[in-house]
Amino acid sequence: MPAAAHVDFSTLETPVALLDERRLERNIHHMQTAVNALGVRLRPHVKTAKCLPVAARQREAGGHGIAVSTLKEAEAFFAAGYDDILYAVGIVPGKLDHVRALRERGCALKVIVDSADGAHAVVEAGRAAGHAFEVLIEVDVDGERAGVAPDDPALIGIGRLLHEGGAVLGGVMTHGGGSYHRFGHDARVAFAEQERSRCVQAAQHLRDAGLPCPVVSTGSTPTALSAHDAAGVTEMRAGVYVFNDLVMAGLGVCRVDDVALSVLTTVIGHQADKGWVLVDAGWMALSRDRGTQDHPIDQGYGLVCTEDGTALDDWTVSAVNQEHGIVTRRDNATSADVRERFPLGSRLRVLPIHACATAAQFSEYRVLTNDGRLETWPRFGGW
Amino acid sequence: MPAAAHVDFSTLETPVALLDERRLERNIHHMQTAVNALGVRLRPHVKTAKCLPVAARQREAGGHGIAVSTLKEAEAFFAAGYDDILYAVGIVPGKLDHVRALRERGCALKVIVDSADGAHAVVEAGRAAGHAFEVLIEVDVDGERAGVAPDDPALIGIGRLLHEGGAVLGGVMTHGGGSYHRFGHDARVAFAEQERSRCVQAAQHLRDAGLPCPVVSTGSTPTALSAHDAAGVTEMRAGVYVFNDLVMAGLGVCRVDDVALSVLTTVIGHQADKGWVLVDAGWMALSRDRGTQDHPIDQGYGLVCTEDGTALDDWTVSAVNQEHGIVTRRDNATSADVRERFPLGSRLRVLPIHACATAAQFSEYRVLTNDGRLETWPRFGGW
Repeated sequence: MPAAAHVDFSTLETPVALLDERRLERNIHHMQTAVNALGVRLRPHVKTAKCLPVAARQREAGGHGIAVSTLKEAEAFFAAGYDDILYAVGIVPGKLDHVRALRERGCALKVIVDSADGAHAVVEAGRAAGHAFEVLIEVDVDGERAGVAPDDPALIGIGRLLHEGGAVLGGVMTHGGGSYHRFGHDARVAFAEQERSRCVQAAQHLRDAGLPCPVVSTGSTPTALSAHDAAGVTEMRAGVYVFNDLVMAGLGVCRVDDVALSVLTTVIGHQADKGWVLVDAGWMALSRDRGTQDHPIDQGYGLVCTEDGTALDDWTVSAVNQEHGIVTRRDNATSADVRERFPLGSRLRVLPIHACATAAQFSEYRVLTNDGRLETWPRFGGW
Repeated sequence: MPAAAHVDFSTLETPVALLDERRLERNIHHMQTAVNALGVRLRPHVKTAKCLPVAARQREAGGHGIAVSTLKEAEAFFAAGYDDILYAVGIVPGKLDHVRALRERGCALKVIVDSADGAHAVVEAGRAAGHAFEVLIEVDVDGERAGVAPDDPALIGIGRLLHEGGAVLGGVMTHGGGSYHRFGHDARVAFAEQERSRCVQAAQHLRDAGLPCPVVSTGSTPTALSAHDAAGVTEMRAGVYVFNDLVMAGLGVCRVDDVALSVLTTVIGHQADKGWVLVDAGWMALSRDRGTQDHPIDQGYGLVCTEDGTALDDWTVSAVNQEHGIVTRRDNATSADVRERFPLGSRLRVLPIHACATAAQFSEYRVLTNDGRLETWPRFGGW
């Protein structure tokens, strides 16, 4: 079903980040329902939208605390009344004064470490300031990024350093980023179980060593929506589900018409002999993300839709410069009628490959509201 | 020579866009000298830096007018006193009211078209408002993006439509984006000549048809620095030279130590068994640009330098998530001493693959000034 086709976009100067409130709320409801059914709390990761009205909807739906990827997000959301915040990027000594300042203002900001060096730095900074930081240990469940392996003896050493050094050992957390490479339902279910079992295993090792581990935090959009079991987990974090995107659709985590974010663009020209349509959305608007490059269906820099949001499944943005996008048929067949089909000045929408990256290129969302109006919701960026 | 090693970065919360004023000014001087030697004007493209102090240095060095990629740039630079502006992206009907508003406020803003449809739209909008737009015709010299081929009979039709329809036919322009795929000096020289000769040929066709063509505008950083001859050209445009980047260095257009922009980042962890160093510069700071992927030397998401700017030629950012970068040796050899060599909390700099894209991720530059201070220069984004 075309989304909010009755809204008049004609006065908007393109490119514009359009957000479909109906799809947004459906996505939020879908994730909250899935995580509720597992009997754990959902901690939305607000790095995707960086937008207060979006986070408010996640909280109203039942979200419990938030995760952030920068201290700027922590500042902005704390100022808006969010006081249970997990900073989900490994902490470094140079940011601990900032973290402490937030905590002393009343923000229950938690940090993560995955090494004895990190734990030592937190303990030292805490001692120097007479402050007890709250720390989760990051666990590596898939070898893709950060974290200590659950069976690495270093885990207990890190826990002991923190606990005995005066920090609050809040528990363990992991991000199963490997879920982004698992195609098909069964592979996702298996990966979700891998994420769960390894993170719970780490928690058990800490408890067996006499250390506290109240929180076991897992999650990613694919695993949160695929897990059959959350035994031992206390909360799940997920971010991109709020908008969804073509990576999620390509993995089978959502449908293309669950993608709530799109970029409104205008046709600026043609190279008809090649079947090219040039639009005013280049990488500055779409981002350079090529996250579907290794998918069965490569969506280029984005899937093209008509102005009312109907996907044109054969048409993608196949190349980008800073403010130019080149729209072609996916099969590279030339279409001699591109001038007639996509006239100069006509509007298209482009669905994002990676919503976090595309959204980051904009300072505001133009929102197609449920009641057919156009609202502006600000978004912040930077550090 | 390490750059401005005496500046204390320790209070900066990373990631930060660092700009080396000495390299910046050297790059500006180098380009201005090269274009002066060709006997044509240089019109800097301000889309790379989007920063008034940078543009001021380009103007002081002898730059003549500017090119912009968005009307927001036109607004911002016109407000700062730049009144000779070329909007170098194909104009669409919906933006002509905005263009006219700028022109009526005194901005000599020029637009470009590459089709009869585009010319018609400009003429119609001009007639309706009683306004003469100034228009350049975009010429396609390499088949890579927009523009009408110089020997396409449509060229004369477009020129006639504009000239007889009441617009000011300002001339022709092209962007030789194909120069970004020409490796080695000889290939660049040949491509610069291709760009020049085809654009001049288009101008000649217009003049032969009795149409005016005062401006012949070519350019890209590689061609402007490689051209042996500018006969028939009146101005060159170039943008990325102001910062330079690893794409330019990979092409041989600059040296690695001409790159004026870098991202200061902090080590947030390690996976020592894999030889990984994790840093707090992910794609949000570096961009997703992989412009050296098809170069002889693939620099990943950026080349790693020590905090004082000394390049570590074997180390690149080989993978990125939103706020995580994974630094590895280029040859993927594991380096068991990564914890000792790059301790947690230590600082590195990352040189950008594509300076336009990396700069776009930041709202300000921290500038290492010639006299050893740290200044903040704002940058704007959006549309």
